[in-house]
Amino acid sequence: MDRIPILKISEFLLVSIQVDMHDRLALTLQDDLTNKISATGAKGVLIDITSLDIVDSFIGRMLANISAMSRVLDAETVVVGMQPAVAITLVELGLTLPGIRTALNVDRGMELLRASLREREVDFDVEEFLKRADPSEVGEGDRAR
Amino acid sequence: MDRIPILKISEFLLVSIQVDMHDRLALTLQDDLTNKISATGAKGVLIDITSLDIVDSFIGRMLANISAMSRVLDAETVVVGMQPAVAITLVELGLTLPGIRTALNVDRGMELLRASLREREVDFDVEEFLKRADPSEVGEGDRAR
Repeated sequence: MDRIPILKISEFLLVSIQVDMHDRLALTLQDDLTNKISATGAKGVLIDITSLDIVDSFIGRMLANISAMSRVLDAETVVVGMQPAVAITLVELGLTLPGIRTALNVDRGMELLRASLREREVDFDVEEFLKRADPSEVGEGDRAR
Repeated sequence: MDRIPILKISEFLLVSIQVDMHDRLALTLQDDLTNKISATGAKGVLIDITSLDIVDSFIGRMLANISAMSRVLDAETVVVGMQPAVAITLVELGLTLPGIRTALNVDRGMELLRASLREREVDFDVEEFLKRADPSEVGEGDRAR
């Protein structure tokens, strides 16, 4: 096993981590994933960790790195499928997952990604509107209120 | 690694095979998958074999078994992500995959499943229509043609 497969599902990418991670595998995954985001224009990445029995600081850092890299390439990352025992251990060990969003399962992760995509679109529309609107009219509206 | 995770994606189940299969793992997968189909009422199963470098008669039989079991539980199975080299080897070895439908990738596999679900619905509607229609009227229409 020299690489983890990345599956394209509609506008998202799904990575299911089933094997023990080590440095080289993590680097290959980062490489493959960033290439795939750039090739497909995917707007979201789902990382499934159903199979992981433990999330240590190495895995945590890897997830944070992937999330940060994806964000630079304009794709959101959601970690899904964490086992209840893993969540307990994480908190007991005092580990946090900074910058990482989680969802219960793939379906909810996709909902989360779709919701944040819609939000971004709304933000964009408002900016567009303000840019295109007649400045004097916007000023008038403001004064009228 | 004692079991392969089964992910629910909308109305389908996705199984990504990334590790070497052996007898016990295959049995556990069959067990888990049939239970999950029954629990979720999933109408389709996608088996991703992107990671497999070889599909031998053991894997072929396992895929055929899963496909047959799912069919009994009213779920269609599609094998997706086969590497080009695997397809070449399959044919060169004279192996066929009887009773197994394949698609290029997850997206196309889902399309295939959705299309066959729609077909089944249409079949059902025709039967319902014939059952509910007035037999004399149907007879008249037939004679008029």
